[in-house]
Amino acid sequence: MKLLNKITEPTLLLDKQKCLLNIRWMKQKADKNNVQFRPHFKTHQSVEIGEWFRQEGVLSVSVSSLKMARYFAEAGWKNITLAFPVNIREASQINELAGKIELNLLFIHKETVEFLDQHLKNQVGGFIKVDTGYHRSGIPATDKNHIEKLYRSIKNSGNIQFKGLLVHTGQNYHAVSKTEIVSNYCNTLEQLRDLADTCCGDQKQMIISVGDTPSCSLVDDLSGVDEIRPGNFVFYDLMQYKLGSCFPDQIAVVMVCPVVSVQKERNEVVIWGGAIHFSKEFILRENNITSYGQVVELNKEGWKWTGNNEFLASVSQEHGIVKLLPEKIAGIKPGDLLGIIPVHSCLTANLMKGYLTLEGEKIDHLNGQLKS
Amino acid sequence: MKLLNKITEPTLLLDKQKCLLNIRWMKQKADKNNVQFRPHFKTHQSVEIGEWFRQEGVLSVSVSSLKMARYFAEAGWKNITLAFPVNIREASQINELAGKIELNLLFIHKETVEFLDQHLKNQVGGFIKVDTGYHRSGIPATDKNHIEKLYRSIKNSGNIQFKGLLVHTGQNYHAVSKTEIVSNYCNTLEQLRDLADTCCGDQKQMIISVGDTPSCSLVDDLSGVDEIRPGNFVFYDLMQYKLGSCFPDQIAVVMVCPVVSVQKERNEVVIWGGAIHFSKEFILRENNITSYGQVVELNKEGWKWTGNNEFLASVSQEHGIVKLLPEKIAGIKPGDLLGIIPVHSCLTANLMKGYLTLEGEKIDHLNGQLKS
Repeated sequence: MKLLNKITEPTLLLDKQKCLLNIRWMKQKADKNNVQFRPHFKTHQSVEIGEWFRQEGVLSVSVSSLKMARYFAEAGWKNITLAFPVNIREASQINELAGKIELNLLFIHKETVEFLDQHLKNQVGGFIKVDTGYHRSGIPATDKNHIEKLYRSIKNSGNIQFKGLLVHTGQNYHAVSKTEIVSNYCNTLEQLRDLADTCCGDQKQMIISVGDTPSCSLVDDLSGVDEIRPGNFVFYDLMQYKLGSCFPDQIAVVMVCPVVSVQKERNEVVIWGGAIHFSKEFILRENNITSYGQVVELNKEGWKWTGNNEFLASVSQEHGIVKLLPEKIAGIKPGDLLGIIPVHSCLTANLMKGYLTLEGEKIDHLNGQLKS
Repeated sequence: MKLLNKITEPTLLLDKQKCLLNIRWMKQKADKNNVQFRPHFKTHQSVEIGEWFRQEGVLSVSVSSLKMARYFAEAGWKNITLAFPVNIREASQINELAGKIELNLLFIHKETVEFLDQHLKNQVGGFIKVDTGYHRSGIPATDKNHIEKLYRSIKNSGNIQFKGLLVHTGQNYHAVSKTEIVSNYCNTLEQLRDLADTCCGDQKQMIISVGDTPSCSLVDDLSGVDEIRPGNFVFYDLMQYKLGSCFPDQIAVVMVCPVVSVQKERNEVVIWGGAIHFSKEFILRENNITSYGQVVELNKEGWKWTGNNEFLASVSQEHGIVKLLPEKIAGIKPGDLLGIIPVHSCLTANLMKGYLTLEGEKIDHLNGQLKS
């Protein structure tokens, strides 16, 4: 790649073709199952990548902050779910945005519904956030009493229109097999269908919204859900590969980092590329060895997965230490570039604040709106 | 604090008075020992906080990237050490900056010295990066042959003026006691003094530069070193407290985050404050329990350390889960704010991209130069 000659600093390379295939594949899966596709834009946080979704016919999206919602609203997105428990300290900003677009919020507490009902002038949609086993946020699916009360509270409000039940099956990130992911999905769906029947009984139309990349990638038959909200699939990453959600060739981003030192005696190189580029998210390799990324081979077409025992073994603020095979270390010198698949592409993209495509095009990110 | 009423999103609060005391205390320690104080600005990355150092008489600084060097050079800093192994892919930008300020670089490889000597038109200073046991980067102190060769190579170059030996005793971050930190320091110093005598024998004047916050905080007698480069001490954090480098009252930053959900049955609250605010750096509490931050009490004066068993137990992209004492959880509701000391203030500041002082003043950060 001639492109590499111009790279002087840690850079997040994006293979646009892989990314477009990921988007198309998930959109087609949603269409085939007749479910609404509401991709989570927190992974890419990019207006330009958002356009690639729009070209596939996507019109509704999820985001994880009000700031992100405003960023995409300004770019013309008219139907946004803020897929995070609503923060009532932002009531006035929520009201303002709800005057411009269709905005859906997530509720867990009756007090929050009542507060916003008093403080909003514009209509919003309201989902009940249900917890089917992840135990991060949401009302436990077993707590039917609480869910029914919250449902009544939303139905009785003036400004919040009940939309449905929403879940994030984050427990899939701790799964040890594809079977476990599919099983978590089925279990989640069963709980949500039961809640829809028993707690929201007088509601004729409602949305059951699910949305993690592992289950949306691995489950083919989405009968029974109305909406999917995966986000990470747009790029995938090392963690998704480890979970079995994707093949290496579906991973659409790679970090390219300059080598600044070679420690042959330890089969290590030091790269410029640390916690402020990759994040400190790690996976465990065999024998519980920590990895912050997988080394790939940079080539003319972009990069190639090798599966070698070569990985980013530690990161501090700017430094990364990469373990390489002895036969590789012999040919490496300061000034070379290494390609490394990040563990968690959402966090890496958030830190890198922008992308460079294989064609040399710079792609925006919400965090990258630097002064020119 | 009235200030808190205005906070709607995760915010990095800065106690300017504590910060000024930290700066003054370290400057006085350096002055008393007659060593050069070259603070590392990678922690705060702020031109305004840089000015607080200048007011104490500081004129030379360390940074961790060329971008950071340029940022501070533009703000009038004339003497900067880029305390990171030199990245030869940035040779032309290095040359440009070296034409404007006194710029020092770090060398590990003879090839790098030769490359830059050919490609630079302006003079730079050169330090040899020595590894006294951290094993991240640098030439092992035991490899005298390599160090002597690199010294000769720098001395023979036309554009690189030999400055001295530089080390980062990062092994202190794995120390289990203050005694171990002091012992690492003494051991490092002994190795550097020996190298200065044996490998750089014909050099009359040279600088021995050391620079980690734990040893600079805990060692009183700095005889034998010429320069110290601590960075984190400007704020300190939970990791430094755990190491014994600071008292809780010296920690000058706290994250303030809105509560968005309360899970009384688990003694947990969900805050808006996750990996993209705190970073995923953690420490281990007793019984190997992971902590991403320590809860403090927000009050009229700022915040108060309680030492309670209340901490940030997990973080995903935007979510944080905080464990609280049962007696506390009873009084908490969505919309409240929690104060949490971050584990690693450098990474948190890098993500937060700015500060808010207790007086309500916004303080800049290199990453926060957003379009207005």
